[in-house]
Amino acid sequence: MRKLSVASGQLSSEFELIARLTAGIHLSGRTNLGVGDDCAIISRPRGATLFTIDSMVENVHFDLRWFPPQALGARALAVNLSDIAAMGGHPTACLVNLGVREGLTSRTLEQIYSGLREAARESSTDIVGGNVTRSRELSITIALLGNVGRGVMRRDTARPGDEIFVTGTLGDAALGWRILAGKLKAVGKAKTDRALIKYLVERFIRPHARLYAAQRLAALRPVPAAIDISDGLMQDLGHILERSGVGAEIDASRIPVSPAYRALMGDDLGHAMTGGEDYELIFCAKPGHRESELSRRLRVAVRRIGTIVRGKRLNVIGASAPIVAGWDQLRSRG
Amino acid sequence: MRKLSVASGQLSSEFELIARLTAGIHLSGRTNLGVGDDCAIISRPRGATLFTIDSMVENVHFDLRWFPPQALGARALAVNLSDIAAMGGHPTACLVNLGVREGLTSRTLEQIYSGLREAARESSTDIVGGNVTRSRELSITIALLGNVGRGVMRRDTARPGDEIFVTGTLGDAALGWRILAGKLKAVGKAKTDRALIKYLVERFIRPHARLYAAQRLAALRPVPAAIDISDGLMQDLGHILERSGVGAEIDASRIPVSPAYRALMGDDLGHAMTGGEDYELIFCAKPGHRESELSRRLRVAVRRIGTIVRGKRLNVIGASAPIVAGWDQLRSRG
Repeated sequence: MRKLSVASGQLSSEFELIARLTAGIHLSGRTNLGVGDDCAIISRPRGATLFTIDSMVENVHFDLRWFPPQALGARALAVNLSDIAAMGGHPTACLVNLGVREGLTSRTLEQIYSGLREAARESSTDIVGGNVTRSRELSITIALLGNVGRGVMRRDTARPGDEIFVTGTLGDAALGWRILAGKLKAVGKAKTDRALIKYLVERFIRPHARLYAAQRLAALRPVPAAIDISDGLMQDLGHILERSGVGAEIDASRIPVSPAYRALMGDDLGHAMTGGEDYELIFCAKPGHRESELSRRLRVAVRRIGTIVRGKRLNVIGASAPIVAGWDQLRSRG
Repeated sequence: MRKLSVASGQLSSEFELIARLTAGIHLSGRTNLGVGDDCAIISRPRGATLFTIDSMVENVHFDLRWFPPQALGARALAVNLSDIAAMGGHPTACLVNLGVREGLTSRTLEQIYSGLREAARESSTDIVGGNVTRSRELSITIALLGNVGRGVMRRDTARPGDEIFVTGTLGDAALGWRILAGKLKAVGKAKTDRALIKYLVERFIRPHARLYAAQRLAALRPVPAAIDISDGLMQDLGHILERSGVGAEIDASRIPVSPAYRALMGDDLGHAMTGGEDYELIFCAKPGHRESELSRRLRVAVRRIGTIVRGKRLNVIGASAPIVAGWDQLRSRG
């Protein structure tokens, strides 16, 4: 048995740690066997199975000095849920791989799991097992299963003439991250308005996967092409264009930003266009859908931002300030 | 897009890296959609779904100075395949999460994937997607799905009177690891016999999951209780006893060890009883099975080593030398 050194707890082993973190965990009727054997057993689904994995690594995706452990657990699941949402699916079961470094308290791990369990409960996802390994940095890797019926939203089905929509507002998470990392100073109105700052930081720390909206979208016929925005609008729309073999024309003036974003950035749409971590949806639907009708149906604000065109180019019109760098350049700057 | 610094390659992004590592990958008819969208899509299975995850972390489970990258990729899958085997299942699809640190060459990553792809091909497992993240140490985390019919081998079904069997030989991998890590000096005959050393090291570096044997076992009625040996015979048998609420009596003199093990360790069965990483099977079957018949049916040597009894104790009889420490103590010693 591989011993783990976890401060201020009596945990002597991976086995005890998993047992403690998953004690009394609720499981749906779909799960025949959860934590405690070599594999989890999940009953036969009604449709096809979606399968995705994502990882959050300390000092790459977060810093415990400014990231609450509970939010970390919830976020590690949310980014996976967002992939299930992007296909129009329903999450069913997840496995959690924790990399645990020295110096972490068992309280921190319990807080991470507490946030994770809450996020799992809210999204009807069973936590069916896990693994803990020693590591030099804290990491949380989650593998998630989902079910999907006939309405699967893929990246490769966008066609010329389709209208391009996004949910919610863009760029908030990128600003929140920059504020937390000390790379963005609030000025003017934002400097005195703590609520604006808090809103942006929360958008980074506590993203919500658009599961409900995506499930409603997947019921449309024909089924829209879709992707979630993890790397940034331009980047992720680019994945749809590449996979579908089409181009797009985007009207920058229609890109939805929040009042908090506007207060900090004015007309600079750079972070809204290329900032990542928003976990909103981009989808491409046949013409004829009105924003107001879609917003009501999806229960989230929906904005039409452009059109799919023939060719390979992504053209942006209507930008009043030059488009700045991509998400990663934001990270490595400053 | 998150840039990755991978030496001596032109890889500028996670996206390109995944595309390159998975180029031309073979997929079975079960996989509707592999790498390239938000999730993989896998068609509806015939029976229930098995779901497991495991991780290999640099400087915890391996050291690139003595672990060939190709073997590393194969082993990362093998340890997961062994969990599917332990339940009597058939592997179907996996997702791969790579943590990539600075200083790794793209050649190393390609070798890892080459070994992984070969192991996937051999076991009819589809690699349906992956994720790459920056990290301070190389890590490979694999989430694996499998199918299982009515014959599911669980840990909680051992009953008093059941006979306890193991496949193959035990302790080889623990010795191989100690040799690689410079913690065990070969003496006597073993010192001059390079083949013995090579055999032990290979047993650690290239474990094979007992998929075929396990699938045959799962066809027995009643279905045996089973587990794979990852932490060591005593530890893993302990999991069966705990989950089944029973005890066991083990005859140490019947524990199968290889000629190489005998040459190095003589009568000391410590590593055979408590050394991990063998990925052999322990199973508990109703009396009446002969070793020779089981060995022929499972296509691997099978040895009866004891009996399930009432109570909670694990008694070992017939040991000619005292039983030494568990796997982890081996690691932290010397």
